[in-house]
This record gives sequence, C-alpha cells and structure tokens, in this order.
Amino acid sequence: MEKLQSYVSGQWQAGAGAGRLVRHAVTGESLYEVTSAGLDMTAMLAYAGQGGKQLAAMSFHQRALMLKNLAGHLAAQKEDFYALSAATGATRKDSWIDIEGGFATLFTYSSLVRRELSDERILVEDGWTPLSRKGGFGARHILTPKPGVAVHINAFNFPVWGMLEKLAPTLLAGMPAIIKPATDGAQLAQAVVKSAVESGILPAGALQIICGGVNDLLDLLGPQDVVTFTGSAHTGQTLRAHPNFNRQSIPFTMEADSVNSAILAEGAADEATTLFVREVMREMTTKAGQKCTAIRRAFVPRALLPQVKEALLARLGKVVLGDPAKEGVTMGPLASQRQLKDVSARVEQLSAQAEILCGAHLKPFEVLADDPAAGAFYPPTLLLCHQPKESPAVHNTEAFGPVCTLLPYDSEDELVELVALGEGSLVASVVFEAGQDVSELVGRLGPWHGRLHLLDPISAEESTGHGSPLPHLVHGGPGRAGGGQELGGLRAVKHYMQRTAIQASPGAMSRVTHSWNTGAPVVVDRVHPFRKYFEELAVGEQLKTARRTVTEADIVNFGCLSGDHFYAHMDKVAAAASLFGERVAHGYFVVSAAAGLFVDAAPGPVIANYGMEGLRFIEPVKIGDTIQVELTCKQKTRKPRRSPEDRPQGVVVWDIKVKNQRDELVASYDILTLVEAKD
Amino acid sequence: MEKLQSYVSGQWQAGAGAGRLVRHAVTGESLYEVTSAGLDMTAMLAYAGQGGKQLAAMSFHQRALMLKNLAGHLAAQKEDFYALSAATGATRKDSWIDIEGGFATLFTYSSLVRRELSDERILVEDGWTPLSRKGGFGARHILTPKPGVAVHINAFNFPVWGMLEKLAPTLLAGMPAIIKPATDGAQLAQAVVKSAVESGILPAGALQIICGGVNDLLDLLGPQDVVTFTGSAHTGQTLRAHPNFNRQSIPFTMEADSVNSAILAEGAADEATTLFVREVMREMTTKAGQKCTAIRRAFVPRALLPQVKEALLARLGKVVLGDPAKEGVTMGPLASQRQLKDVSARVEQLSAQAEILCGAHLKPFEVLADDPAAGAFYPPTLLLCHQPKESPAVHNTEAFGPVCTLLPYDSEDELVELVALGEGSLVASVVFEAGQDVSELVGRLGPWHGRLHLLDPISAEESTGHGSPLPHLVHGGPGRAGGGQELGGLRAVKHYMQRTAIQASPGAMSRVTHSWNTGAPVVVDRVHPFRKYFEELAVGEQLKTARRTVTEADIVNFGCLSGDHFYAHMDKVAAAASLFGERVAHGYFVVSAAAGLFVDAAPGPVIANYGMEGLRFIEPVKIGDTIQVELTCKQKTRKPRRSPEDRPQGVVVWDIKVKNQRDELVASYDILTLVEAKD
Repeated sequence: MEKLQSYVSGQWQAGAGAGRLVRHAVTGESLYEVTSAGLDMTAMLAYAGQGGKQLAAMSFHQRALMLKNLAGHLAAQKEDFYALSAATGATRKDSWIDIEGGFATLFTYSSLVRRELSDERILVEDGWTPLSRKGGFGARHILTPKPGVAVHINAFNFPVWGMLEKLAPTLLAGMPAIIKPATDGAQLAQAVVKSAVESGILPAGALQIICGGVNDLLDLLGPQDVVTFTGSAHTGQTLRAHPNFNRQSIPFTMEADSVNSAILAEGAADEATTLFVREVMREMTTKAGQKCTAIRRAFVPRALLPQVKEALLARLGKVVLGDPAKEGVTMGPLASQRQLKDVSARVEQLSAQAEILCGAHLKPFEVLADDPAAGAFYPPTLLLCHQPKESPAVHNTEAFGPVCTLLPYDSEDELVELVALGEGSLVASVVFEAGQDVSELVGRLGPWHGRLHLLDPISAEESTGHGSPLPHLVHGGPGRAGGGQELGGLRAVKHYMQRTAIQASPGAMSRVTHSWNTGAPVVVDRVHPFRKYFEELAVGEQLKTARRTVTEADIVNFGCLSGDHFYAHMDKVAAAASLFGERVAHGYFVVSAAAGLFVDAAPGPVIANYGMEGLRFIEPVKIGDTIQVELTCKQKTRKPRRSPEDRPQGVVVWDIKVKNQRDELVASYDILTLVEAKD
Repeated sequence: MEKLQSYVSGQWQAGAGAGRLVRHAVTGESLYEVTSAGLDMTAMLAYAGQGGKQLAAMSFHQRALMLKNLAGHLAAQKEDFYALSAATGATRKDSWIDIEGGFATLFTYSSLVRRELSDERILVEDGWTPLSRKGGFGARHILTPKPGVAVHINAFNFPVWGMLEKLAPTLLAGMPAIIKPATDGAQLAQAVVKSAVESGILPAGALQIICGGVNDLLDLLGPQDVVTFTGSAHTGQTLRAHPNFNRQSIPFTMEADSVNSAILAEGAADEATTLFVREVMREMTTKAGQKCTAIRRAFVPRALLPQVKEALLARLGKVVLGDPAKEGVTMGPLASQRQLKDVSARVEQLSAQAEILCGAHLKPFEVLADDPAAGAFYPPTLLLCHQPKESPAVHNTEAFGPVCTLLPYDSEDELVELVALGEGSLVASVVFEAGQDVSELVGRLGPWHGRLHLLDPISAEESTGHGSPLPHLVHGGPGRAGGGQELGGLRAVKHYMQRTAIQASPGAMSRVTHSWNTGAPVVVDRVHPFRKYFEELAVGEQLKTARRTVTEADIVNFGCLSGDHFYAHMDKVAAAASLFGERVAHGYFVVSAAAGLFVDAAPGPVIANYGMEGLRFIEPVKIGDTIQVELTCKQKTRKPRRSPEDRPQGVVVWDIKVKNQRDELVASYDILTLVEAKD
C-alpha cells in the first residue's frame, strides 16, 4: 500500500511503520496509508525559517503576484485534482466548490492585497496621531510579519479550499506554512502542495506538509509561531489546551463546526418560505452535509411548520444518493466509514429528543451505486423537535452529514433564546419577505454569530448562499464555533503579523513608514514635482506655491460658473446672519484655486488626478484673504504592470495644505495621482 | 480590623472568615483585611446581566457622555483617592499617574467614541462590499455588544488607572464589568468603585467589585463573557489554563509584565546617550519600578558602556528613597513586604549572571523614614551583564522593582537576537540621534513588541516617555507579555463586541445599519432635502437634479478662474495624445458644477459643507457631455449639545453620484454637512 509522503525540509519523505488506511468513499477500495512517524519536526521548523526570511524580504505586491502565479499554475492542473477529489465521495459540484473555490480564494486575496496595501514590507495601519501640543511626538501602528511559522491543522471536508483559504493570508503576511491535512482527503491536499512545490513559485521553505500526526511539533513552537485549527469543537479544544500555547502565548485560531441555524422570520409568507426550504435542502445535501457551515437547526414560526415540513420532505424525496460517477446522482457518500458511524451515532442521540421525518432510521434507502454496502452512504435525514426548549441535544449535537432538525418557535424572544442554546455559531440565515424589517432580530442574533446571511427575494437572486464563507468576510464564530476569525479581507493577513504602536518624532516616523507625515522634514527642489518621474520623486518633496488673493469677483465668477449660489457665498444679508458672519468663498473654489496654484500645465509625468481623500474645510476664506498651498509627496506605490505594453507608472499621494495670510490652515486633503515611471 | 466590602448584586457585603491582611507600605501598620468567602457569584452575574441590558440599550454617544460624567464626578473627589494611594507607598507623582491618569483615560475614551462613532447601538465597521454582479447582494461587518459580563482581574501597581483603562472600553461597548482588584491597593480601587456606584451615573449592575478571590465565578462564565488579566506572566498563565475558558472559547486577554528593553542605538553620540540615561533612570524609580512597562534590560553599544554606566550611577546616586510624605523623597517603598521579598529573590537570581553595580546587595542603603525597617523599602539596583548571550536569567527574570540590568552589544544582529531572548515584551525604547535612520532596526524589533518608543532629541522634548501606555495606542505585547491587546483606541472597544459579517440585499442592509448604501431603495420628495431639518430628513432620501451640458466655454472659463491650465483640459494637441484622447473637463469643475446642481441657495437648515470623503473620478467628462447628480442622504448623526446655548444640529453625510448622459458614473463621493435640528 502506498504511504503518502510528507514534504519535510525540502524532501518528500514517508513516515515509518504502518499508517492509517484510507479507503475510497464510494467503492471502499484501499487507497493509501498515512503516517508521519519518525519525521523530523525540528528540521521542518528550520527549513520554514529559511522560507520565512525570504518571504519577509518580499514586498506585499511581490507576495501577491507570487500567489497569483501559484493560483494560475494550480488551476491549469485542476483535472488531476478533480480525479483525486472523486475518491472522497464528492460530486463534481462538491469538488468545484473545494478546488476552484480554493484557487479563486488565492486570486481574490492576491487582488485584494495589491489594491489595498502599499508595496512595502511593513503594513502601516493608520494615520499620524499627534501626541503632543507642538507636534514633535506622535504615533502610528505598524504590522510586521511574525518571524515564525504558521501551522495549519485542517479538516477533511474541503482538502483544497480549507488549505488555501488559510495559506493565502499566511503567505501574503510574509509567513511560511506547515500544513497538516486531515487523514481523509490527505492525498488531494498533498497533490496540491506537491504541484505548488514543483512549480518553484514559492521560496524554498515557504510551504511544507505533514501527512500524518504532528509528532512533537507543537512542543517546539515559540512565541512567533501561529497555529490554526479547523475541525470539530472537541478536537479543537483538546489541541487548544496544549500547555506550550499557553506558556508562550501562541495564537491559536479555531474554526469549529457549530450547530448553525436557518431562521424563517415571523411574518414570512410564500416567497420567503420557498427560499427557506430551498436553502435548507441545499445545505443538507451539498457535500453530503459535511460542511462546518451547514444548517443543523431550521427554525420556523409554529404556524408555518406544516407547510415547511411538507415542502422540505418533497424536495428531499427527489435527492438521488449514490456514486457521483453515475448519471443522475445528486448527493455522494460521506467521506469514510468512520464518518458514517459517527453520523449514525449522532442521529441516534438526536432522535431521543426529535422525531425522524425521513432518512436512515426510518426506512431502507436507495443508493445508486455498484456496491451500496461498500461506500459510506447516508441518506438526507430530517428531524422535527416538538419541544425545542426542553431538548438540549438538538442544540448541541452536530451530526456532520446530511442531517437537519426542524424547530418551531412561538415568538422572537423565544427564537433568540433557542438560537443562543447553540452556544455560538459560524453562521445563521434569516429568511424573510422583501422589504420586511429584521434589523432588531439581526442586532440580537449578532453576538452569537460570525456571519449572518439575510435572505429575501431580492438578495436570493444573487446570493452566494448560507454555506459559503467568502474571502472578504469574517469566517469564524464565538463560543462553540471556536472564537476565531479566518478570512475577512486584510483582517486575516494581519492575523499573521504583529501589531506595534510606534511613537516617534515626525521625521523618525516618516523614515519608519516610508511615507511623509505632518511635521516631518521636507525637501525643496527647483524642479516642479509634476515634472518628475515616479522614480525621481522623493517622499517628503514639497512645493510651496505662489499666493493668490481671493476677491469678491472670484466668488461671483465661481458662483456663476458652477451655478452654486448658496447664500453664504452670494447673499451679503443672509451671510451676515450665518455662522461665518459675512460672505465666504466656496469651498470648491478654494480647492480649484489650489490646483491652479500647484498644477504644472504642460504634459509631464503626472498623468491624472483620479481622486481625493479626507477633505476638510477648516477656516473660511473671506473676501481679501490670500491663500497659499503646500503640496507634499506623501506616499508612492508602484503599480504592477499587467503586460509588457503597460506604461510603467505608480500612484503618488500628495498631502495638500491650503493656508491663509495668517498661516492658518484653510483646507487640508490628500490627492491621488497617477505618475509615469521611467521603467 | 476592617474587612474590605465587595459590591455584589447591589449590596456592599463583606466576605466571611479571616482575610488577607494589608499593611501600610511605609509604616507597616495594619490597614484592612480582604476576603470574599461566601459571596454569591451567581447573583453577581445576574445583576451584571441587568446592567448589560441597560448599557446595550444606550447608544455610543449616551455611553460616552455617561463616562464623561463619571470622570468628572471622580475627579472632584481626587484628594480622597490621593490619601488612600499614599498607603501603597506611592509618591504624589506616582499617584498622579494612577489617579489623574485614570480619569484622563475616561475623558479621552469618551471623546474618542463621540468623535469616531455614530450615535447608534451597532457599530458598522466598513462600507458596502458588493458580492454580486448586479448589486443585489453585498456585505458589511457590524459589531454588537456581547450580552455577557467582562471580568477584569487587575494588578496591584495601578489600582485606579489599571482599572479604568479597561473599564472605559467595556462600558463604551455596552458591557457590564465585574472588577477584581489585587489585594494590595484594593482599598483604593474599592473607593473609586464606591464613589462611582454612589454617583448613580451608571445603570444598576454595570459595575461590581470583588475584594478577595473570585470564588466559582470563572466556572460560571459562558461564551458571551470576557476575562482580562493584568499582572505577572505566571499568574496569567495559570488563569488562562482554566478549562472553562477553553470549553466556551471565552476570550482571555492577558497583559503581563515583561522584560522590556531600552536600546541605545549604534551610532548614538552624546545627546542620545543623555536621553537614554535619563529614560532608564526615570523608569527605574517611578512607582519604585513597579510598572509592567518598566525598563528591565538596557542595551548599550559596547563602546558606550563605560560612559552610560558612569552617568547612570551618578544619577541613581541622587535618588532619595523614603517616606513620600517627607520633603525631598523622590522614591517610595515597594507596595508590600511580600513584594520586597520577591524583588530581593529575583535580584539574587539575576546576580548569578550579572554584577550588581549599586543597590541593596552591595551596601547598606539610606532610607528617609521614621522607621525604615517597617516599610517595604528597596533601593535602585543596577546590574551589569558582561556575557548577555550566555545569561538566560537576565532575559527572563523580572524583578518587579527599581531594578535594571545593563547589557553591552556588538552588532545590530546580536542586539535583535538578545532582545528576542525576552520572548516578547510590551515595549522597547530605541534611543538615537536626530535624523538617524533606525527604520531597519524598528522593522526587526516590531514582531517582539506591542509598542516601540523612538526617542531622539526631537521627540524627547514632548515624549510621554517609555513607560506610558496611551489610550489611542495598543498596550500589550506578544509572547511573555501575554499576547493581548488593551487600549488602542476603538480596537479596545471592539474587544467587548462580536464582529459579524452581514450579507444582504441593499435594502435589508440599509435597514440593519441605519444608513443608506448603493442599491438600497430611495425616497423622493418634492421638498428639496436642503430645506429639511435634521429630524425631517430620512436616510435614503434622494434628490435627482436637473442636467447640465458641459461646454468648451465651461472648461475655458474654469481654467481661467481657477488658474489650472493643465494640458488635458486646455491643450487640444497634447490632450489628443493623452490617455483621454481629447480635452476633458477639470475634475474640480465637475464637482463644482455638481454642487451648482444640488445646492439650494436660500438660507435653510443645511448650515455648511465641511468636508468630503472618497472622491473618485471614474469617467472623464468631455465637451458636450451632459451630467446629472444623485444626492442621497446616507447617514445622520446627531451632535451632542455642549451647552444649552448650542444650536441643536447634526452631521448628515450625503452620497453623491455624478452620471453622464449614458448613465455612466463620472464621479462618486460623500459630502459632510452640518444640518440644523428643530430641537
């Protein structure tokens, strides 16, 4: 029997001795053994350290492009992965979620980082906060990659997506990863890692995999390492209690299966009910219900219970369970006989407090497969709990398969109470009619969930569904769900970095953050900054413009040209009674005149002003006031070239301060420009 | 002997049996006993639940004003607190940091929340993220108060500040608190709580205190509760291992004493050296060195060691240790005989690997007190470690008193390695000359610290010092420092809330967040929105303006009036070769003309436009294009009235979309206006 190799310190190695046997979920044939006995965890950590050094030396955009290349490389080999995925019992659609969903996550994260972060190695989180009266001392927060390793302990249900959704933010942050896939599905995870390693796209040491147990790895970790776990709450809690995590304050992120809810809201009518039934049915059967986000509890207003029950049973009756390779099969087996046994036991527990409406325990079920007994087949099983308040098992038992319990409720207060008996979940869906106001309910459910999926006939048209975590959104939940937070855009990247408050003089801060902040030294050059190419511009380069006296004629002309005849500018009588006490120039005139003062008219490297941030009008400009502008190069970010034909360019952010003749700040803002680069 | 009462479920109650005796730090006289035996923790939790309901029902601004009132009430009684503080051995200056620093934190947090958050009960963290092609499905993240209780287990060194810096974000988030002060200093913490409770400013149940142990409280907590701990790493780790925290994923934030560093940078000369010596000396003696942020390791380039050593010894020689009530005393005793014993033992350990240069172990020391033997006096003790790499004790032993070790280093690489032997710290100071570039070093030290204090001759003038956590900045550190994060502006408030991703149709999202987002339904009224008072405006109210055709004359006139003759607007030849292909209108003309279209000229409730956010120019406006504006009321925030004379008003944020005749988006931004309210 093939022993699945691990990638340890640059070598593919098999563990010693006999391993755990993994069988084909449909045919039951023996596939491979998994063991990591004897593999050298100390060597793995040292190798990861090398990878980490290289990753940390790369900029965010370099890491993001690396990830994009990796995604492209893996996507080209996707059919190999589909073939291995079939052995886990997945239908083509199940595999698509796992495989292509995983690659899409890499692509999305790559774009996100290029769009939202500067091309630096340090992430600067906020603006300059002055901490002193004269401005000589202030603060910003930065994040730096942790010089350790991220150990990812993954679940069996999504061998690819579950691995890549955590790998993406890890690598983007500049940390190497050691991945420990679940035994079931390990072959698929390993194949993806193998392909990634062979591509040569990642630095050596950035990615390793342990097929088997982690040996003494967790004891060897230190305060700069991070551990994540996805899987059952029970296993997660056992791991989290590891004394070394406590002793060294090693962050342990847990995303555990939870007893998630779908809620048909009070006031729901036919449309919402149909949506609700479709969503529950879809969550029960996709991936044979083996999803940490799947709906386990379906709450229904008592009056609607008969209708929902009937509709659900009708839909579930149409599910074709069997070998996904066979035409017409809509749901595959569970991942293994072990899972089958586990799910059966949990349904047994549930049935003590809930009536089984359909499924394994009620009747013999049909399986479309050559040898139904060989595969881990389990039919969609719907239960009904008549007394939800008196039935704790229903709220804390998770059958990790195509199993769901219907629960009636009598009031919103009772509903919130019942949902909370789940002790914290990854997600709940609330289903209601278009235009219905569920905001009060959402506020009450919020503390118990990491995500709330609000489904009405409008969102239903394009909703990605109850069960889909998305790269931009937090994935994780309080309490039983583990209290962790995966994904969520940049939040996930920051999880692999250390946040540090920096207190400094303006000049020192500017040097640390590679960006100019108020009070930092400026550079003045006789060459106008708009005449300089991207490379030639220095952060801190400043233009102090000529002055301009604002006249009554300016205000009148601007009012006429813009059409803005607001009384504060045009009506001497009303302006006298306003908070300004007299006519003042239009704010947009001040901004326009400022541009008139700082713009260099002839064609040059500055291509366009495409935006503005944080405009504040601080002091009014009155007739006879004289304004002057300080334009300072605040930050430069090189834009990646998508193709060789792309003109090389970068984004330059300029700090603009408009002052009056008394040196008072009149207006302050940033402008965003595209600037051509030499190459 | 007085037994210190706890505030339990609305009653001041003393624990049963004999308690631990606390003595005056200077005179040694018996002060009070501390015991909580028999106090009913279940009742405390139920009472906290009542308080939590009331807090959660308040808006952020209401909570912030409550906090401001509380701070004002406590500040008026500050002399009572100074009197109790003296018994802990604090000098007047030490007490000032604790007492007035604590009240200042309340004031700062109150302002911060009123400035940065809307006056709502739900915190909306980000903007509308579309998740679908047609825009019918999107997401935002919200935070809701956890419906549990925050248990704060505090350290003895800052009974007031240490309590209030955690209480402020807790109450602002909408959570009630149960405070367990350290035994030493409990009388002072209790007096502050007593005053707060008596003021009636907080809702009943919002604040309780346990003087003594927590009995079975930690076993009773659930997934919506939060525990924080400030104190020694050892005690913190013992607490963190509580099985109930793991089982229920109860967030446990730990801020532990760490072996913090001060670093004199390579290249430092006289000025930096002087600053370094002053900082080390100040940190050793303030609060007799009993600060979790105090400098325990002082790193010095080997060449500068003799100079630093001599200067430090000279300054330490001038410290007058004794009873702070006596004229001339600059440093008081430790908090208790127990601390004295502990510090002595630690110095003993340190002295195995470092030479004692001055302090307790070297010579008899002078104490200016009536009965030197009665107080917990310990002199400033400086050590020198000659072989820092071979001396682990120096990096992991914390003597929580006026104790510091000098360590020479030979290169920046070695320095970073040595600092890392501390296994994670709250803070380090880096001291260098003005203009020196320490950015590389900062990047390497970042992962090991929650805060870095960069001290150069410029920042030194106004620096708040190495040892001061500030409300806006993260306080906490990785590894040994506990891995937690207190303070840090809104980050700390969010710690007591649950973050939830909301996925919904635009209309449902708008209802949940009380703000309008793209795609949500709009309301059109014949009355111009600028003619409506704050109360009359509805979120989602939209004005679709008349159209305006942009002509060559407009561009010419705008160029002349603004002075902005940029070629893309004024030069037909160069514009033809630009990325626009022809002349386009100035972006600021578009914004100005948009205002001309939507502004209502006569005096009315809209008082002023004071700013703009997120301006993006999306499509160019060419000669002959016709623009039209959609102005939509996006968000309303009532401004608190500071005095009865204040005119009632609020901030209204308007979403502006400028479109062209092809319904393409030309420009998009938000404007911020002040709008008068009726009352």
